Amino acid sequence: MRMYDLITKKKHGEILTKEEINFIVDGYTKGNIPDYQMSAFLMAVCLKEMNLQETIDLTMAMVNSGDVLDLSPIVGKKADKHSTGGVGDKTSLILGPMVAALGVPVAKMSGRGLGHTGGTIDKLESFPGFSVSLSEQEFFDNVNRMKLAIIGQTANLAPADKKMYALRDVTATVDNLSLISSSIMSKKIAAGSDVIVLDVKCGNGAFMKTLDEAEALAKTMVEIGNGVGRETYAVLSDMSQPLGKYVGNALEVKEAIKTLKGQGPADLLEACMTLASYMLLGADRAKTVAEAEALLQSTIEDGSALKKLAEFVEVQGGDASYVWNPEKFPRTEFVEEIVATEDGYVAEILTDEIGMTSLVLGGGRETKESEIDLSVGIKIHKKVGDYVRKGESLARLYANDLTKLKAASPRLQAAYKLSKERIEAPKHVLGIVTKDGCTRF
Amino acid sequence: MRMYDLITKKKHGEILTKEEINFIVDGYTKGNIPDYQMSAFLMAVCLKEMNLQETIDLTMAMVNSGDVLDLSPIVGKKADKHSTGGVGDKTSLILGPMVAALGVPVAKMSGRGLGHTGGTIDKLESFPGFSVSLSEQEFFDNVNRMKLAIIGQTANLAPADKKMYALRDVTATVDNLSLISSSIMSKKIAAGSDVIVLDVKCGNGAFMKTLDEAEALAKTMVEIGNGVGRETYAVLSDMSQPLGKYVGNALEVKEAIKTLKGQGPADLLEACMTLASYMLLGADRAKTVAEAEALLQSTIEDGSALKKLAEFVEVQGGDASYVWNPEKFPRTEFVEEIVATEDGYVAEILTDEIGMTSLVLGGGRETKESEIDLSVGIKIHKKVGDYVRKGESLARLYANDLTKLKAASPRLQAAYKLSKERIEAPKHVLGIVTKDGCTRF
Repeated sequence: MRMYDLITKKKHGEILTKEEINFIVDGYTKGNIPDYQMSAFLMAVCLKEMNLQETIDLTMAMVNSGDVLDLSPIVGKKADKHSTGGVGDKTSLILGPMVAALGVPVAKMSGRGLGHTGGTIDKLESFPGFSVSLSEQEFFDNVNRMKLAIIGQTANLAPADKKMYALRDVTATVDNLSLISSSIMSKKIAAGSDVIVLDVKCGNGAFMKTLDEAEALAKTMVEIGNGVGRETYAVLSDMSQPLGKYVGNALEVKEAIKTLKGQGPADLLEACMTLASYMLLGADRAKTVAEAEALLQSTIEDGSALKKLAEFVEVQGGDASYVWNPEKFPRTEFVEEIVATEDGYVAEILTDEIGMTSLVLGGGRETKESEIDLSVGIKIHKKVGDYVRKGESLARLYANDLTKLKAASPRLQAAYKLSKERIEAPKHVLGIVTKDGCTRF
Repeated sequence: MRMYDLITKKKHGEILTKEEINFIVDGYTKGNIPDYQMSAFLMAVCLKEMNLQETIDLTMAMVNSGDVLDLSPIVGKKADKHSTGGVGDKTSLILGPMVAALGVPVAKMSGRGLGHTGGTIDKLESFPGFSVSLSEQEFFDNVNRMKLAIIGQTANLAPADKKMYALRDVTATVDNLSLISSSIMSKKIAAGSDVIVLDVKCGNGAFMKTLDEAEALAKTMVEIGNGVGRETYAVLSDMSQPLGKYVGNALEVKEAIKTLKGQGPADLLEACMTLASYMLLGADRAKTVAEAEALLQSTIEDGSALKKLAEFVEVQGGDASYVWNPEKFPRTEFVEEIVATEDGYVAEILTDEIGMTSLVLGGGRETKESEIDLSVGIKIHKKVGDYVRKGESLARLYANDLTKLKAASPRLQAAYKLSKERIEAPKHVLGIVTKDGCTRF
């Protein structure tokens, strides 16, 4: 088999066999196929596309390029959630304890944040002492005992995807459904859970700008997952504004704790209830969404979810007293209100810019090596559709460095677009994709 | 300007500006744009195409990437001919002297052969002492004095094309009209002649397999040439069998001499008359094809073309006595006849295989460094449409090495396909493309 012939085949729009796709992925990962051949191939894929079987074969070739976690030492059906990335998304911190409190095992491998979206591990490290450096045995034991553990990305999951993504990123071959969906799914499949619930965002703060694009991506990923024997669902959700009211590591943890006490914002609660419901359905813990939601609601009302969060933080070395006394989280030295310069309705929030503002304050990483300040961030006072009077606060900045605050302040101000006309508040959960198709809400 | 954005633009089928194309070609030639970005771009060009203006801009960007010959010290309109490559093609050796004998300057920069087609310089080196190592001044002086000189490719013509071609060759991005035509035309334009006559071959021995493909390529090249102020014509010719009767360096020189004496094969004479006619038309030496052909015929009849060849060979250091006594060319030690194993019509000759047979005998280069044996080659006794009886010779091998002869013999045998049914002999010249369009014969 020669790469040249396989490039030619895809260039002519022909279908590649599983063996051919394995040859390409394996050869590229091992360095036998050079970047310049791979990028020509990837461009041909972008312009001639891959069908579902090719996409599944590509996904599995990337899965098999590295470690595949065997979670069989953990009893029961393991459920995992994956978000395509969003600003203010702290759902893992909320739904993990809820689902675990209902006895469904959540064995999560998580990453750190990069760019304008935060990572779950960074957020959890707001608890002094918290660590994701568990041995495999500890990880399995913790999940078996209390149904929830989070480990850092130690295993070498889908190295082919990592190498291919880096190449796609510099050759304008990112935006193809087969390539995006196989990239995401290869890592989730390698991570070993039986049930995968995907949170596919759309809007100005997401990779997919429209609901149609998000639905197409969601469908492909659900087909891949179910095609290789993982029960997979996708929730379509709005990312035209940050999720909840807080952006920033410790600030988001505090909001998660509030939500587990039943005092969270409606959009965040809705997101968590929907995602967690499908985790319960997939793990056979509930038969209907209504049953699942009632069960999840009970974990808030009886305090079992918050207790589960405290237990989990403590077992992984963190100071659980912060769960019970969130005022212990460090406060920033400076606070600045961003006020409306005129009366009007909030018409638009540039979500990426909110994420970038948090990064500018020191709350995110520009490069993998950046140190981050866990206490800084933003409180969103006004969301899309809210009416605001001139001089009223739109949002608040929390900062520890005046230079950074000075850079962040106009950025946050510019992220808000007001309108004299009434604006409808957007719905948060927009649809659900199962193997039977898509239902939009 | 960023290469990433330009790849994206072409990927979306948008038109690139001259500045953008210059940025790409210049950046790639200087090494600022890496191979993997260029190959993704080239694949996008293959699948989304370039329009004529982009193709012209690409050609000129490649022309300007290196030396551009200034032939203005040579008096008059300079005419050049370029063939897309064929087996047994010795037309330059014949039409050069004919055209020069009529006073039209031919200042030719030529290359050596590589692969299964021979190079004009290799053929000319069959004359002992012949050299193409002229200084620029000698080159100009020779053309001014006797209208014909051939120099080796010393100048750095279109280095961008060289680098891009090497990349296209390994990334399955060769077969695009804009890329092929700009590659050929960039070198011819940089070589400086005012009149360019292209010989575009089609058939099993050519890059373009069908007449339609050849016509499309010819049209694009003629449009490029005329678009940048070079009078350009293209002759469409058949390469479903070798041109003339001989393949091999000295053997082809002898056939050229015969043709200049009026004793050449019909297809070869037709090819030379057609190509040379358009050189005369372009250089304003004749007003009609009929007038041009009559003039060319006279150079054979009065011996002026043969005399011109002898003069040219002598001035470039070669032994011109070989022109008058071709029996002086060295003969090979071995000769073998390839005979028909049955009665029938010659239905097909695998032209590439004839070229490969010559190469196997030692008459061509496998790599740039190969030494070649100028005396070996093939005589074609039977061409397509000829009737042959069992035991009659189809072709003759000339060899100096029994091992090579043993390898060549079955190859040549297999290149002939016989048929019981009558086969029409193919025409050689199939059409002509001028700036006014294509006329097929």
